[in-house]
Formats: sequence, structure tokens, C-alpha cells
Amino acid sequence: MNKKASKEKVMQAAIEMFNMKGFTGSSVRDIANRAGANVALISYYFGSKQGLLEHLMTGFLEGYVSAIEVQCEKLACENGEELVFDRLLKAIWNVMVYQQNNHELARFIHREITLDTTLVRELMASYLAKEKHLYHTLLNAAYEKGEMATRPNEYFVLQLRGMLTMPFLHPQYIREVYHLMPHENHFLDQYFSELCQWVATHFKECVIAVPAPEN
Amino acid sequence: MNKKASKEKVMQAAIEMFNMKGFTGSSVRDIANRAGANVALISYYFGSKQGLLEHLMTGFLEGYVSAIEVQCEKLACENGEELVFDRLLKAIWNVMVYQQNNHELARFIHREITLDTTLVRELMASYLAKEKHLYHTLLNAAYEKGEMATRPNEYFVLQLRGMLTMPFLHPQYIREVYHLMPHENHFLDQYFSELCQWVATHFKECVIAVPAPEN
Repeated sequence: MNKKASKEKVMQAAIEMFNMKGFTGSSVRDIANRAGANVALISYYFGSKQGLLEHLMTGFLEGYVSAIEVQCEKLACENGEELVFDRLLKAIWNVMVYQQNNHELARFIHREITLDTTLVRELMASYLAKEKHLYHTLLNAAYEKGEMATRPNEYFVLQLRGMLTMPFLHPQYIREVYHLMPHENHFLDQYFSELCQWVATHFKECVIAVPAPEN
Repeated sequence: MNKKASKEKVMQAAIEMFNMKGFTGSSVRDIANRAGANVALISYYFGSKQGLLEHLMTGFLEGYVSAIEVQCEKLACENGEELVFDRLLKAIWNVMVYQQNNHELARFIHREITLDTTLVRELMASYLAKEKHLYHTLLNAAYEKGEMATRPNEYFVLQLRGMLTMPFLHPQYIREVYHLMPHENHFLDQYFSELCQWVATHFKECVIAVPAPEN
């Protein structure tokens, strides 16, 4: 097994263990056993269980935030003909797809982030503050361009984010109570479409009717 | 200290410990120490740590579901002149106030419910299935009475519930990233008002304009 493959295997085993027995309930030995690796290798790669946690969390949040950032950058490069509304919907879609592609990790991290730890506070001050800033950038641009009648407040971003993470934090609830399959494409499409309708209520009628660009 | 007071004290200590160190990270001894009670008393009241957890969860969910149920019952008793829209908004408001009044417990339980345990599955099949049913009852009544143009689907209830629990599961995120105070009345009022606007987009214009009754 090459170096990269075994590192990935340790990360995957850690995600599975943390989802089953929680972070405090899983030992480095449990993770090593599950990954078919030895404890020394985990120490070598990540230093400690805490180091492994940090690696997983920052790695996930990097990708999560950049799913939105890409749309902000595209917006900045465009000549102003494209709708900010479409960029916002694309950012939302990207964030959902990113979480679906990493759904085991997403579930663990969204849960972990509800805890009151130093690491969580640091991640909030960096990644999650940036996420909020990126949404505000898109919304402000939409308002300035006259796509929205009023500038949305903090509560809009808060509720948007809540809706975006909910299916990935509560997949079991969705399965057990609604008999829907949160990790299937059909669910994602429907959920996204409902979300878009809500977002659209904040935009002017003329904006919503225009078909979206491809990328 | 009388019997009821000491039982309450143990429950309060357990909630605090579980929020700090998690359920698996807290021992019965930790809880007893914090409550100024002895371990035997906890066994007497709750049987075990698991028994204490079940007691806390079912107690919270009873109150949570009945906050909605009360409005369904009122609707059934009414002569049909009142709007279902108002009953729905009152149910939403009651659920928010109930969670705010029990915000430490709410935070712990909403997090615990993201885990995959037998207890959680049982609670989903009972309380959370009932919660969904109650929302559907209200929405169906609204549709039958012609207050809505289309019958809302499962996704509406799912997103509504996500929005309703979010501030109580993620209070720290709201404080750190938005500098808003999730347990203050001002936050609750604003958050509720944004939520109402979203719910209102599913109702006909003529319904929304009518002022709500008092109880």
C-alpha cells in the first residue's frame, strides 16, 4: 500500500469510528485496527487523535468554503451580464453536492461543531466567518445590481445555512421519519428545488424567470 | 431538600455535564458530585445513566410535541372562523419558546438525536413521527380550507423543522459568527418574524393580511 492510500484509509477509518462511537469514545488503537494500520503510523501522520480530528475538520471546511468561493470569484471576473441570483444558486448547489460526496464526514463535523471546544471556536472564527462573508458578498452584489428589492439581513444567511446543513446532520431522522433517502440524487434535487423557491422569494420577479448559465 | 427538588437538581446537573463532556464522557459519579447528591439516589430515581438519559429525552419531547398539539386541538374545537395559518404560526412560536425555556436541554437533545442508537430510533418512531403528523394535520387543514394554493410536501415540513431547531442546536455558532444572542427575546422575535415570512410565501395573499387571535 502506498503512503497516500494508507493515510486515506486511516482518515476513512477515523470518520467511521467517530460516527459510531464519538470522538471521545474512539481510541487511536480502534482506528488503527479498523484501518489495518499500526498506531505508530497514525502518530507519524497526524501526531495524535486530536491532530487527526483537526486534519479532518480543516480539510472538510476548506472544500466546503471553496464551493462558495468559486462562485464569488466567477462573479468578480464576469462582465456583469450574468445574474448574481444564478451564482448564489450555484453556490448552494455546490455546497450540497460537496456535502453529499463527503456525507459521512459532513455528518460527523456538523455534529462536532455543536460542541464548545477551543478547536471549534477557532474554526468558527476562520472558516465559518469566511463562509458568512462569502454569502454576504453574493447578497450585497445582488442588491447593488438591483436583483433584490431589500438587502437581506443576517437571519437570511443563518436560515440558509441551517437549511443547507440540515440533511447532512440529520440523515437518520430523514430516513426514519420521512422515509426519504437523504443521500440519493432524487432527494438532493427535490430539496434543492424547495430551497431555491425560498431564496427566490427574496429576489425580484424579473430575475427568477431567466434561465441559468451552465457553469 | 425535598424529594422533587433533589430529583430536579440531578436532572439539571446531568444536562450540564452532558453538554460539557458528552453522554459517554460523563459518569454517574460526576453527575452526583455536581448535584450534591449521592450515586444511590440517582440509581433510585432513574435506574442508571441510560435511564436518566431516557427520562430527559422523553420529558423534553413530550413538551415539545404538545406545544404543537395544543394548536391542533384548538383548531378542532373552533367553529372554522379562525385561520389555520394563525394556528400554524402559534405552533411555531410555542415550539420556539418551549426550546428557549429549556435551551440547555434542547441543545443536548437535538445533538443526541443525530446519533444512531436504539433509543433515538424509538424516539423518532414515536415523538418525531407524531410531530410530523401534527404539522401535516395543520397544513392539510389549511389546504382544505383554501388558505393555500397547493398542498405543501414533506420537504416543507422538513425545512420548517430544520429552521425551528437550528438556533437551539447551534447557539454557539450564532454567537461567535453572527454576534447575535440566540437566547435573548430580541433574537427569538426576529428569527420568528423571518420564519413567518417564509411560511407566508406558501399561503394565499388574503390569508396573511388578517391579524392573529390572542391565544
